[in-house]
Amino acid sequence: MKNYVIGLDLGGTNIRAAAVTRGGEILHRVKIPTEVANGRERVIANILKVIDKIKKELKGLKLSAVGMGIPGIIFFNKGIVAQSPNFPDWIDFNLRERLSKNLALPFYIDNDANLAAAGEGWLGAGKKFNSFCMLTLGTGVGGGIVLNKNIWRGEYGMAGELGHITIYPDGHPCPCGNKGCLEQYASATGIVRMAMEGKEKFGVWSSEFGEKDITADMVYQLAKKGNKDALEIFQKMGRILGIGIADLINILNIELFVLGGGVANAWDYFIPSTIDEVRKRAYRITGEGVKVVKAELGDDAGIFGAVYMAMNELKSSGVVELRS
Amino acid sequence: MKNYVIGLDLGGTNIRAAAVTRGGEILHRVKIPTEVANGRERVIANILKVIDKIKKELKGLKLSAVGMGIPGIIFFNKGIVAQSPNFPDWIDFNLRERLSKNLALPFYIDNDANLAAAGEGWLGAGKKFNSFCMLTLGTGVGGGIVLNKNIWRGEYGMAGELGHITIYPDGHPCPCGNKGCLEQYASATGIVRMAMEGKEKFGVWSSEFGEKDITADMVYQLAKKGNKDALEIFQKMGRILGIGIADLINILNIELFVLGGGVANAWDYFIPSTIDEVRKRAYRITGEGVKVVKAELGDDAGIFGAVYMAMNELKSSGVVELRS
Repeated sequence: MKNYVIGLDLGGTNIRAAAVTRGGEILHRVKIPTEVANGRERVIANILKVIDKIKKELKGLKLSAVGMGIPGIIFFNKGIVAQSPNFPDWIDFNLRERLSKNLALPFYIDNDANLAAAGEGWLGAGKKFNSFCMLTLGTGVGGGIVLNKNIWRGEYGMAGELGHITIYPDGHPCPCGNKGCLEQYASATGIVRMAMEGKEKFGVWSSEFGEKDITADMVYQLAKKGNKDALEIFQKMGRILGIGIADLINILNIELFVLGGGVANAWDYFIPSTIDEVRKRAYRITGEGVKVVKAELGDDAGIFGAVYMAMNELKSSGVVELRS
Repeated sequence: MKNYVIGLDLGGTNIRAAAVTRGGEILHRVKIPTEVANGRERVIANILKVIDKIKKELKGLKLSAVGMGIPGIIFFNKGIVAQSPNFPDWIDFNLRERLSKNLALPFYIDNDANLAAAGEGWLGAGKKFNSFCMLTLGTGVGGGIVLNKNIWRGEYGMAGELGHITIYPDGHPCPCGNKGCLEQYASATGIVRMAMEGKEKFGVWSSEFGEKDITADMVYQLAKKGNKDALEIFQKMGRILGIGIADLINILNIELFVLGGGVANAWDYFIPSTIDEVRKRAYRITGEGVKVVKAELGDDAGIFGAVYMAMNELKSSGVVELRS
């Protein structure tokens, strides 16, 4: 019987899932609202509903395992959500144990940014590379490190917090407790803050867009029109990203950096500054060959990564041999 | 016949070497001047002389391989010295090829800081840990990353340049081309510069010691006497080191940091600031369990690391099975 694995992406708004074969073929997709506001048990019920829908759809096939990505701090080995920005009441919540009551299947969770990196490494921008770093530039900055085709998780499964590399030791406070983190500059939130710092310009801009609050997309639209102030914000953001990437090059001698997330859409406006900064700051020999590329899988990276992780865990646990 | 491996530490002043068994027992030691000023061929001749001396001393035993640590940028896979501060004329010098003319033995070289980390991981402060970072605080700041008991070398064998993590993007220029590198603050050179920045104090201090130039040791001796300005320099240096360590924790979720090199002798004066800064800046969960400890093997770390590396390379190449 043909096997498949379900990959889930547990977002704050939607649960997105797909049934995927070992060869990376998507057999079926499901998307339903997460319903965070209705409490933890409703979210759990919705996760189970998604899995059930897929199982019913693929009756003749065998579901081998379920993998899921969640934003936040995840104890990978134990399947515990330590904390998650989308689910404030999930503190040290043993999600694997909770789901095992209803799900007689191997079930694995990991940080969503780690899984996006795993997905890009399996089927996307990183597939020809053994080792690379992925930075997801969204509301925050997520990170994932792939070393020799495996996610590097570190001691507690919390490695790859690349958004929390310190750029300016006395810089803007970060909710993580540090100051001047990469995330405070190279994210949508950072772009909005940098725009807000130019007050008069902010007034001009928002009125131009008939909006009250400035958004990262507004700054992007302005940059597209050639607005000098908006372009400067992306240049600054690009330079700061370059400082972080140069650090990673000097530390890890990694040759590929994959950039995903919504902010990466402003590629043309920040990437020249990023490359310039990397060239200036990284060791010459290790910096010269570095490639910085766009992620290829978009929103599906996390789903594919969840599948890839679950397949690897199955293999290393010896539970079952997957057939494509 | 009992086997042994020779580990060499190629310093700017001396070549230090030891014959070591697989069990880590030192059978014989040799130390001779490097004679850098007499040119490259003289240094090569001296390396061969050291190996010859040991072979003669241990006639009844079998020499399996030679490992050597060199400061600078080393192409590990090819055995090439890309550049070295101690040997300015060794640019892209294929040391392995050069030595193979005179040495019918497997021969491996690596960066000295990488090998210090490997040595501490084998027999020193890191031996009970699978993964750790080592920082060698000397004239500069060397680094080595051990992941799952192996040195992480990256794409070209140049990973672990932990002294070149950017701390202050607009900080003091570093000879590596970057600005505000960790090395510019957490090294003997950095300590001297920070002391020089307080000009009047500098005058008072040097006269107190009857010296013209200020040295890191002078600052250390002053700190020992309770001199407030000297203590402040070590506190500043400690905080900056903490920023770098916090970065490594957030990136790699590493639990052990081993500090070696001469500057680490000022431990009591900088380490409280380092720990304080790590607690403030690293992710809470990953930072809490972190241990920062002194290196245990002193100058021998590099020699043991060279032996450990050579043994591992022999094993993975399948050339010979080592017997202790």
